[in-house]
Parts: sequence; C-alpha cells; structure tokens
Amino acid sequence: MERHFHEQLDTLKKHLIHMAMAVEEAIACAIEALVERDDLIAEKVINMDERINEMEIQIDEECLRLLALNQPMASDLRFVTSAMKLNNDLERIGDHAVNIAELAKRLNHNDPLKPLISIPRMAEIAQSMVKQSIDSFVNAEPQLAKDICKRDDEVDNFDDQIFRELLTYMMSDPKLIPRALNYALISKNLERIADLSTNIAEEVVFIYQAMTIKHHQRPVQLDDIRSRS
Amino acid sequence: MERHFHEQLDTLKKHLIHMAMAVEEAIACAIEALVERDDLIAEKVINMDERINEMEIQIDEECLRLLALNQPMASDLRFVTSAMKLNNDLERIGDHAVNIAELAKRLNHNDPLKPLISIPRMAEIAQSMVKQSIDSFVNAEPQLAKDICKRDDEVDNFDDQIFRELLTYMMSDPKLIPRALNYALISKNLERIADLSTNIAEEVVFIYQAMTIKHHQRPVQLDDIRSRS
Repeated sequence: MERHFHEQLDTLKKHLIHMAMAVEEAIACAIEALVERDDLIAEKVINMDERINEMEIQIDEECLRLLALNQPMASDLRFVTSAMKLNNDLERIGDHAVNIAELAKRLNHNDPLKPLISIPRMAEIAQSMVKQSIDSFVNAEPQLAKDICKRDDEVDNFDDQIFRELLTYMMSDPKLIPRALNYALISKNLERIADLSTNIAEEVVFIYQAMTIKHHQRPVQLDDIRSRS
Repeated sequence: MERHFHEQLDTLKKHLIHMAMAVEEAIACAIEALVERDDLIAEKVINMDERINEMEIQIDEECLRLLALNQPMASDLRFVTSAMKLNNDLERIGDHAVNIAELAKRLNHNDPLKPLISIPRMAEIAQSMVKQSIDSFVNAEPQLAKDICKRDDEVDNFDDQIFRELLTYMMSDPKLIPRALNYALISKNLERIADLSTNIAEEVVFIYQAMTIKHHQRPVQLDDIRSRS
C-alpha cells in the first residue's frame, strides 16, 4: 500500500505540472494575442479555459480519493491538502489569462496606444513566477519558493509604473481614456497572477518546511500533527 | 471518538463563523471609511487584517489536525477540505477590504467626486453574499448557496454601470481622472469580494450535495470515495 500511495502522489504531481503548463501557455498566448493583435489567439485562450477547469475538478477529486483511501499522515497529509489549494490557485490564474485575452480582443479593434514594452516584460515575470512556483513544488525547493515571494514586489512596481504612465496618456487626451483603462486592467490581471503565484510559493514553503511564511508571521511549527499508529 | 470528532467539527464551524463576521465587519468599516470620509475607520480596517490573518492560520492548522487525528471519510472529509478552501477565500476577502480602506484614505484627501450611491449599494450586496454564503454553510442549505451564485451577475452589472459612469466623468474633465480611477478600483475590489463569496457558495453546494457546480459543468458525483472500514 505504502509504495502504491507514493506512486499515486507522483501521478498527482504530474497532473499538477500538466495543469501548470496549460496555465503558462494560456498566459503566453493571451499576451501574444495582445502584442500581435491577433483575435484568433485570444479565442484560443478563451477555449483553453474549459480544459483547465476540467483539470482542476479532476485533480480535486484525485486529492479527495488520496485522502479517503490512504489516510496519509504528517508531511504526506500536508502535501495533499496543499496540492488542493495550489490546484485552485492555478485555475484562478487561468481565469486571469482569459480576462487578458478578452481585453486584448477589445484593444485589437482600435489603434495601438503606444509600443508595448512594460506589459510584455511584466507578463514574462508573472509567467516565470508560475513556472518557478510549480518547479519549486516538484523539486522540493523551498528556497526557490522564497525567492518567488520576493519577485512579487517587482511585479507590483511594474503595475504602479504602468498605471502612472497610462494616467499621463489619459490626462493628455480624453479620447485615449477607454483604451488606457483596458491596458490598466491587463496590468492588474498580471499583478493578480503574480499574487497567486506567490500564494503557491508560500504553500510550497509550507509543504516542505512545515511552517508558514504567509502574512510574514512568526513561523508556526506543525510538529504536533502525528500519526496515531 | 466519533462524538469527540463531531464536537471538533462544531468548533471548526464556530471558528469559521467568527472569521466570516470579522471579514464582514472589515467590509462594512471600509465602506463607512469611504462614505463618512473617516481615516480613523480606514486605519481600523487595516489593523483588523492582522487578526484575520491569524484566524486563517489557526483554522488551517485546526483542519490539518482534524484530518490527521480522525481520518474522516466521505462527507466529513469533504467538509474539512472544503473548510480549508473557504477559510482561504475569507482571508482574501479581508485583503480586499484592506484595499478598499487604503483607497478610501486616498480619496478622503480630495473633494468628493459625486454623492456615493452605487458603491455603497454594491458593497451591501457583496457583504450580504459573504454572510449568506457562510449561513448556507453552517445551516447546510445548498439552495441558498445556489441563489448566491446568481447574485454574482447583479454585482458584475453594478461594476459595469459604475465603470461607465466614471468614464463619463473622466472624459468630461481630465482633472477628475485620478479620483475616478480610485473609485473604479473600489468597485473592482467589491466585484472580487462577490466572486470569492460565489466560490464559497460553490464549495457549500459541493459539501452538501457532493457534486460540483463550479465552472457550470455537469455535476460530478463523488460516490466512489468510500470508507475502507
């Protein structure tokens, strides 16, 4: 049974990696739809979401089955409950990619406001945060996860900078306001993706170090969760 | 043991209700800070967040202990894992209340843009969605939870309406843009609170009907999760 359980855990890890890859692709395509002004790519992102939603439901059921049939203890228990949260965060990141694709479609109908530099750069960081948070999970690297938490500030600074720049455009010419607002919403969606990746990274630290760095609190040891056997 | 376990579940429910009450209060105070133009109330919301974060960590540990020490099955297992997600959603709602309080503080330094009608009304709905989603959880009322999911559209419509109205202000006078943008961000935060309440309501349906209405999919039965005993 023990060996069988660890095989099931490995399968769960693989499913989470597949889901993360699908989500990363959704972000990359959403930004491509914006940069290349391509409605077809935007539609692709919107259609990909159904598959991501199905993956979330399947992984959730997989975790429930793992808990019900194996009744894992200590670090294995923590691993499975954290996987459920991480799965939920990945699905929400997918939703933000859809939001960006829909905003891109709106923007594609108008002339570009300016050459896009900051948003693709911000998207690159957010996307690498998703990838690295999942890597840190698969490879059991809490230090990498801690580094990801620090990158969240970098994305927040980009969001502030983009917001200020767009404000200048809006104040110089009221006709640019609707377009500028759509770009601001894209930036906000990327900022939320970075936030959710940070949540994942926090969970990874939690899984592997059995402590929480959430809310920048004193770490809470969970050693009192012990097997009854 | 069985009786002891159900007492522990009741305690968990009580803790979640307390957390929900704290979060509801945070939303109410954040809107009061905005309407009454009161920085002190805004500060109160920001300070309340630490307590909400602590509550989240405690409830999370409580759930892990429940799983480790009792190894619940079927509906009890589903209840505890859903409680972990619900707890996470409540904490995020608390973060949005803090965002609103911070935006209120910024807005209090300037003249009001216009009498506030839509935002307090939208906040009322979002707040009642939080309350009802937790009520549906405590009283095992999946029908109430389904009604909450429908109210999400109502809040989305408010957000669209507020956004269009603010756009008119911005285009009529560029000096109003920074203020209007802050109001738009408050509306977006309320919309996210309604979304997260909808997530909670979906979890409640999941707990009590053992099926998922998430992503508006065909319900998935989880009957194959059975006790080994």
